[in-house]
Amino acid sequence: MQPAALLLQERDKILILSHASPDGDTLGSACALMHGLIAMGKTVFFQCGDEIDKKFAYLFEGLELSAGEPDTIVSVDVADKNLLGTLRETYENRIDLAIDHHASHVPFAKETLLRPECGANTEIIYGLLVELGVSITPAIADCIYTGLSTDTGCFRFSNVTPETHRIAAAMMEYGARAAEINKVMFDTKSRAQTDAEAKAMLSIEYYHSGRCALISVTREMMLQSGVTDTELDAIVARPRQIAGVLIGVTLKEKTDGHFKASVRTNGPADASAVCKYLGGGGHKGAAGCSIRGPLADAKMKILAACEAHLGELGL
Amino acid sequence: MQPAALLLQERDKILILSHASPDGDTLGSACALMHGLIAMGKTVFFQCGDEIDKKFAYLFEGLELSAGEPDTIVSVDVADKNLLGTLRETYENRIDLAIDHHASHVPFAKETLLRPECGANTEIIYGLLVELGVSITPAIADCIYTGLSTDTGCFRFSNVTPETHRIAAAMMEYGARAAEINKVMFDTKSRAQTDAEAKAMLSIEYYHSGRCALISVTREMMLQSGVTDTELDAIVARPRQIAGVLIGVTLKEKTDGHFKASVRTNGPADASAVCKYLGGGGHKGAAGCSIRGPLADAKMKILAACEAHLGELGL
Repeated sequence: MQPAALLLQERDKILILSHASPDGDTLGSACALMHGLIAMGKTVFFQCGDEIDKKFAYLFEGLELSAGEPDTIVSVDVADKNLLGTLRETYENRIDLAIDHHASHVPFAKETLLRPECGANTEIIYGLLVELGVSITPAIADCIYTGLSTDTGCFRFSNVTPETHRIAAAMMEYGARAAEINKVMFDTKSRAQTDAEAKAMLSIEYYHSGRCALISVTREMMLQSGVTDTELDAIVARPRQIAGVLIGVTLKEKTDGHFKASVRTNGPADASAVCKYLGGGGHKGAAGCSIRGPLADAKMKILAACEAHLGELGL
Repeated sequence: MQPAALLLQERDKILILSHASPDGDTLGSACALMHGLIAMGKTVFFQCGDEIDKKFAYLFEGLELSAGEPDTIVSVDVADKNLLGTLRETYENRIDLAIDHHASHVPFAKETLLRPECGANTEIIYGLLVELGVSITPAIADCIYTGLSTDTGCFRFSNVTPETHRIAAAMMEYGARAAEINKVMFDTKSRAQTDAEAKAMLSIEYYHSGRCALISVTREMMLQSGVTDTELDAIVARPRQIAGVLIGVTLKEKTDGHFKASVRTNGPADASAVCKYLGGGGHKGAAGCSIRGPLADAKMKILAACEAHLGELGL
């Protein structure tokens, strides 16, 4: 923590990078850090390889972002240089500091501040801001709370620690709009999303004696409902919720004909082990990989990976 | 807090009452308190007007409940004597202490420990156990955590306070199985439930310029999916989640041909005002009423009530 704080104190023009397919934790981390650095008189820049959903716009409110050449590059919540997406080529060898909480982190930066015991990456950012002597404003509290809440399924998952709850309590006292943020993140859906999710759930198929549940979302289904790609993100949690399911798989067709497989597991099953068979990775409970279509081929491949993993577990 | 603690210290045979249609907060409160009283050497009894879902069985593990005549009766999380259900007649005039957190509490007991600032009733029970000098065992921590989590939509709603999070942190340190409890409470569905929910969501209709969303669940749909009545309870939260919806209505057909209307509202809309038109009641955000079928008639009546309420609001 101290070396990271020293590095940031010494530099003036700092570029923050979020991971591709940005979520509340990578954006909350980036925005909280940028608010803090600006308060310290630094010039900050921000980049992300993918477009940012408009529901995250409040994180960027009041942030004065600059354009130009940074003297320092920091990645937040990026577990692997591949997760920089389209920014990878430009930045992979130039990152000064990676701040991350993934146990699966593959080092790529000159310095790494890795805290796998943190449920959310914003927990590390909070510690760093305290170390830097930054006052926690309501805007920073919103950013940190957003990371805590979104990366833990609203304090639901096993990555939550007592510290996660204590930081949440502190952020509420610093002015985080907790209930409003949770309403936007967890309790707001478009009509199209509602319709597409219901149709996708009816597409569910059970394999391997009900230990594996698979839902498929094709471009055609998405066009019919008028749903955006991001709007279907939440659905990946659903197959794992079904009683008896150890491996829940969602196959979502991308515009290039590949399918993104999102794997979520229970109990002894390991999502990252399943995805490793197909060149992907992630955490034990949540991982992903990309598989070439058509749908029937993608299904066959991911189901074979599930079967192989269940076999390894003796199931 | 102190008078309540004194009362419990003085008495020996204590009956705890939970409210009808028992949830995680009333049962978590009852079981945490019973564990504590037993540790203090008291004899405890328990009653609830309705059957307890088997998913709550872990709260009662290791609890030695007695039968016989109590010298003291305590209700937990009961906002009104009517909510004692079938136990009302027997106990309504005999309750020594009511421990509750509902702002709408209508006093019925000789003494009342009311803390409407608490998100969950188990927050009060935790304070009381500390006051009584009871050590928080892992079993007690499970009970208290269950109340915190279930009554706040897993720390999602506006009733969460910093104190709620701090008590959650403490309970995890005392050994509460937080992730396992949340998995059972929020992330476990049967196949039948998954199927029935998806079908019900496809039945959604929008009225009054999209300000009202209505889903209908008939006995036929339930029979086709093989879903139980309780398994469909969670679906009532869904219509309100849709962007632009102020009043979300779920009509569920009961075995007697009536429909139970569950109304959930956003923003200025008031669910209890809608249900009052049809002889029902509840809170501002959540209320219910019973309407005679067939479905077309029930729809017409609840939609007229919605329209009247929107009119009152000038919408």
